[in-house]
Amino acid sequence: MKRSIRSTLRAAVGLVLTVAAGFAFAQDLIVKTEVFTLPSYTTVGAQTIKGVRVGYQTAGQLNAARDNAILVCHFFSGTSHAFGKYSAEDKAAGYWDAIIGPGKAIDTNKYFVISSDTLVNLNTRLPNVVTTGPATVNPDTGKPWGMSFPVVGIRDFVNVQKALLDQLGIKKLHAVAGASMGALQSVEWTAAYPDVVDRFIAVIGPGVETDAYSVGMLDLWAMPIRLDPKWNKGDYYGKDEPLDGLAEALKAVTFAAVSPGWGDKRFGRKWAKEGEDPGKAYGNLYAVESALNAAGAARAKTSDANHFLYLTKANQLFAVDPQRIRAKALFVPVASDLLFPPVLSRRAADTLRKQGNAVDYFEIPTDGGHIDGVTQIGLAAKPIADFLAR
Amino acid sequence: MKRSIRSTLRAAVGLVLTVAAGFAFAQDLIVKTEVFTLPSYTTVGAQTIKGVRVGYQTAGQLNAARDNAILVCHFFSGTSHAFGKYSAEDKAAGYWDAIIGPGKAIDTNKYFVISSDTLVNLNTRLPNVVTTGPATVNPDTGKPWGMSFPVVGIRDFVNVQKALLDQLGIKKLHAVAGASMGALQSVEWTAAYPDVVDRFIAVIGPGVETDAYSVGMLDLWAMPIRLDPKWNKGDYYGKDEPLDGLAEALKAVTFAAVSPGWGDKRFGRKWAKEGEDPGKAYGNLYAVESALNAAGAARAKTSDANHFLYLTKANQLFAVDPQRIRAKALFVPVASDLLFPPVLSRRAADTLRKQGNAVDYFEIPTDGGHIDGVTQIGLAAKPIADFLAR
Repeated sequence: MKRSIRSTLRAAVGLVLTVAAGFAFAQDLIVKTEVFTLPSYTTVGAQTIKGVRVGYQTAGQLNAARDNAILVCHFFSGTSHAFGKYSAEDKAAGYWDAIIGPGKAIDTNKYFVISSDTLVNLNTRLPNVVTTGPATVNPDTGKPWGMSFPVVGIRDFVNVQKALLDQLGIKKLHAVAGASMGALQSVEWTAAYPDVVDRFIAVIGPGVETDAYSVGMLDLWAMPIRLDPKWNKGDYYGKDEPLDGLAEALKAVTFAAVSPGWGDKRFGRKWAKEGEDPGKAYGNLYAVESALNAAGAARAKTSDANHFLYLTKANQLFAVDPQRIRAKALFVPVASDLLFPPVLSRRAADTLRKQGNAVDYFEIPTDGGHIDGVTQIGLAAKPIADFLAR
Repeated sequence: MKRSIRSTLRAAVGLVLTVAAGFAFAQDLIVKTEVFTLPSYTTVGAQTIKGVRVGYQTAGQLNAARDNAILVCHFFSGTSHAFGKYSAEDKAAGYWDAIIGPGKAIDTNKYFVISSDTLVNLNTRLPNVVTTGPATVNPDTGKPWGMSFPVVGIRDFVNVQKALLDQLGIKKLHAVAGASMGALQSVEWTAAYPDVVDRFIAVIGPGVETDAYSVGMLDLWAMPIRLDPKWNKGDYYGKDEPLDGLAEALKAVTFAAVSPGWGDKRFGRKWAKEGEDPGKAYGNLYAVESALNAAGAARAKTSDANHFLYLTKANQLFAVDPQRIRAKALFVPVASDLLFPPVLSRRAADTLRKQGNAVDYFEIPTDGGHIDGVTQIGLAAKPIADFLAR
């Protein structure tokens, strides 16, 4: 009797613990940054980078057929931290945690999900980011590369990820997905390795190339860095860094990702400080201005100015031949996106449909602008889950 | 017989000459800049500016009732040169010459048309521009005002124009019209002086106020100037001027006025220089980048950096109470405008209609962006002529 009660109790407690653990797991997928090292990488531009290192995180299990992997690529100012928390105490989870995890749209119970830092990742000062770029020491000189780092494009980001997947033994991608610059990588992946990629999900992307208008905008983002005398043509490591220019560049990026709806809801015509009428002195600001200033300054603290310049260049270089794309496609623009408005996704969807690709399209109907492709991605959970199941 | 032949000939020649003159007049309306002087002007912010001078040009004749005047207000980087040529040899006529002149939509055979430079006009180095702002010598100190010039808003621009109209003996405006910042002035005029303005035409305007998003964008336009160490907090007169920052600011303005359609048609993914692949070196540019750089640099040569900062501030300060508006309204947005998209005009039109105003609306259907409200204004000639006749 005692044994039976005990074993029943134990079984019940076990069940509760299992359920609780399942719950805890669903809420707090714990991830850690691994480091992938490539002794030497030759860029599309035929330059060599020795000792390439990029960080990545994974969740789920690779199946025996090694064909259940989904690669998630990050946006311009993003990192490999797409899902989960580094520790249960973290306040924020990864940027797409709403759709990645056990039982979520990108279900880590089914799929092995990988997300890596790109080459020239912006956030060189974030503790969990591992990247290689101008701020990295060139082993041949013992000094940071600075602007002597080879120009790299989205295709180079993809090639390094391909080497990582090779090392992990992944031969097929069930899907590659990403927001904004992550969409560029997803499309580039699909065109570069048509035999590897079965599906791609391009969220808030520009379609199959960066158009002239966006090339111009990327140049304007980079401009404040070049204008800051502390940039010193990229030679600032160990010296006074161009933080003012970098903060303004990141302010421009922040601004490009929002919308009039965002401005109306959060700020309207509110002043930055009570009693400091913007009509009374040039330096008196509106609330939206001081918020954008604060965002730029905060983001500059974890970023590197040269990496920013290399990232804008990589985005400008993006252009793939749609005829190389064979994978199933899902486009997810945001209705109010002013950076990559829905028309660009629709145009790419039409091009692919005409050549016979299977194409899904879902528009996030919010008014917050480009950034809603990250913060409101949960609204696209069902179309994404359905697409992955097709 | 001889006399009769002669007189017939003379009459015929006279007719030909009259027609030719009419033709020449229609093609080459010759205008000149007059100067309006106001001994002292007190700003909305209760500051005093002594010796205000602004340039203006006119065409047509004020009628006996003094009620056939139309005031045309210029855009951010514009001047009083809205119509005609300064001399028959000029290659380019004023920016809205397609709709202003004898027999045109704003018919100078019917209307007395005035266009004035604003306070803090950007183009301090253009020979025909007369303005008062930070680059002007403060009579009290004998030195340029610099950043000690009082903050001025669109309402101040309007108040100075009102003083000009008073001097010209104009008590009624048949209409006030303008593109972009000219639309801001037109709306401000209508709200400030509802008894004076019968009609307003707001082309590519933001409606009745500058929203938070646009406030943020204006700050980004001004940013490169503040970042240029030569700006020196506005104290650069007689020294090395902040031309790099000013050029970048004007590049940002140029960019804000165009569109993806503009980029596709003119540049696509063309390189700036043959043989200089943008993928090969950071400094190798796309054609769109070098074109924007050239535009910014060219415009910087005729502009003043502090005036630019004061202009952005004036635009940020714009907000009128639509309930003060009684005039008939015509809104003319451009379909592809990303700076002040049509939704803003439609919103303002709805607000005014709901309160009982007579509102016309015409959308210029082109894909070139904001600037088409200037360059393609001829497409709105009929809606404008019809509106003025109502």
